[in-house]
Amino acid sequence: MQTSAVKYAPYKLKIIDQTVLPYSLTYIQISSIEDCYQAIKKLKVRGAPLIGIVAAYSIVICASRLSKRCSLAEFIDQLDISLEYLKSSRPTAVNLAWALNRMRMVYTSLGGEKPKSIVLALNAEAEKIHREDYESCRQIGLNGLKILPDKANILTHCNAGSLATGGWGTALGVVYAAKEKNLDIHVYVDETRPLGQGARLTLWELMQSKVPCTLIADSMAASLMQEGKIDLVLFGADRITRNGDVANKIGSYALAVLAKAHKIPCYAAAPVSTFDFSLPSGDKIPIEQRDAQEILQFYKYDRNISKMIQVYNPAFDVTPGIFLTGIITELGILGQPLEKSITKLLT
Amino acid sequence: MQTSAVKYAPYKLKIIDQTVLPYSLTYIQISSIEDCYQAIKKLKVRGAPLIGIVAAYSIVICASRLSKRCSLAEFIDQLDISLEYLKSSRPTAVNLAWALNRMRMVYTSLGGEKPKSIVLALNAEAEKIHREDYESCRQIGLNGLKILPDKANILTHCNAGSLATGGWGTALGVVYAAKEKNLDIHVYVDETRPLGQGARLTLWELMQSKVPCTLIADSMAASLMQEGKIDLVLFGADRITRNGDVANKIGSYALAVLAKAHKIPCYAAAPVSTFDFSLPSGDKIPIEQRDAQEILQFYKYDRNISKMIQVYNPAFDVTPGIFLTGIITELGILGQPLEKSITKLLT
Repeated sequence: MQTSAVKYAPYKLKIIDQTVLPYSLTYIQISSIEDCYQAIKKLKVRGAPLIGIVAAYSIVICASRLSKRCSLAEFIDQLDISLEYLKSSRPTAVNLAWALNRMRMVYTSLGGEKPKSIVLALNAEAEKIHREDYESCRQIGLNGLKILPDKANILTHCNAGSLATGGWGTALGVVYAAKEKNLDIHVYVDETRPLGQGARLTLWELMQSKVPCTLIADSMAASLMQEGKIDLVLFGADRITRNGDVANKIGSYALAVLAKAHKIPCYAAAPVSTFDFSLPSGDKIPIEQRDAQEILQFYKYDRNISKMIQVYNPAFDVTPGIFLTGIITELGILGQPLEKSITKLLT
Repeated sequence: MQTSAVKYAPYKLKIIDQTVLPYSLTYIQISSIEDCYQAIKKLKVRGAPLIGIVAAYSIVICASRLSKRCSLAEFIDQLDISLEYLKSSRPTAVNLAWALNRMRMVYTSLGGEKPKSIVLALNAEAEKIHREDYESCRQIGLNGLKILPDKANILTHCNAGSLATGGWGTALGVVYAAKEKNLDIHVYVDETRPLGQGARLTLWELMQSKVPCTLIADSMAASLMQEGKIDLVLFGADRITRNGDVANKIGSYALAVLAKAHKIPCYAAAPVSTFDFSLPSGDKIPIEQRDAQEILQFYKYDRNISKMIQVYNPAFDVTPGIFLTGIITELGILGQPLEKSITKLLT
């Protein structure tokens, strides 16, 4: 059984602190917009769909508090400010903006109502976003079974599981759907440097769910492909553009190129909320650069030397759609040419 | 100026303990065959050419001690046993066996002499192996300049520098040759998981030599290539077969495939001692599997859980020669088709 990374009851929000997994399973409370911003920024909560859900719940909590002391105009102003602030916490994943835009739609469409009524509507919307994500992921899992080889050895990168979503997973959603049907699967888990989301989170949740899995360093994937040990590459997505380019955790692009070179099918799995129809192609996706210490912290350089070390640490890369076999969504599997499939199915 | 990883004066041998770099520059003494075996096994000394040099010196120290108390027959027997024992310390790099075979040639060819005379000859041979490696690396560096683009951004993996050789380097030998000529170069350094030889050793020695460099996680290389930021990929080799297949640190194969996909030149750099003419192709090279803890130690799993985690941890992979642009040796640059160039130049 998957562990849910978010627990919500009106108006109380808790999340698993994912920075301390696997050595501690700790839920922390999110009581304000600032709590939420910091939790996202510091990756206590991460995963494109999950940060959308948690941001939406945070808006509810913020709205509930504001409703007790603000006029309607102040209430709306403050929600606008909070919403923009949360959007700025991570630039690459689009689900965050998507979820927050849904929340804004609620309070702008109910502009004449009292703050108290708006809070109820916001609460309903956030719970709906969460529920829909779970159901979408379940359907992504079932759709993914259609392209799953028999006795599949699946390679995955980063964490696109229950810890990255409303409780089921995208890439790992396919794995869990296979597990439910007792299919013969085994997952190779990329460590995913620098922050080890594969080694810390994916390995942890697969073991909790008793899915057979093996940890590898990122640089070992090519060698496994060469030896014929990988049947399928599956990863999640933080943003997908109209032509099928996929931004995902740094290292995904390498896997897609390597899979193509070894003639291994490679799919991104994501809910429709991950598509950014405003962007024609992936070169327009903003890529977050993160702190040098994320890589350096393991190597104990003297502090003064450490400051002089140049580090390049992008959190994401963009896989041109042409390198993918397809994209698994809750509405079906999008095949090549992706731009055409996306237009047909989703717009 | 490069730091030498080995210091030798008859009959005293010291090496840098490379497991504690960069936070401590510590020389440790090697006083016996067992010291040497453990130092190689635990990667206190590593790098294909360097372990050959250190093993050769260890044989001298062993021989010197034996000569004081053994008959000639015992002396030769004990040297044979020590030699085979050292050979078993690491299976993939061929320079170890190559250097030890040179040492054996000395004492077998001098079979009639007194142990004391043999010790002198062994000492001379070990110093010659060391000196030749340094000179070969200098020449590899100069030869490498012929294929160096202007304003080169070089990507390297693991450590093929002064710390891996008799004091100059193979892949980094090219970098140091360029630096000596004041050429405009910059090196992207792959972290090289799991043991971080790039982050700990290559970065450290490039900074000591004031070569501009930037650290990246292994999974970022493809993204840099995609952005046109890499002009050349250069790595060392632990064993090269007759057809040009190259065993090197795990992750090298991925870089070669990615470089080919991005039309970026990719070279292995190695002295002729790295060629194993007994093997027709790389699939016959033994690949060392190392302990799971090398990857797991960063992630603080509970000890009981840790035991249940499956980890795949090969220390090397094999790049089929066809993925390389060429191989840089002290005798010249071997181009495609590699099998033909190797036969022509080296046999």
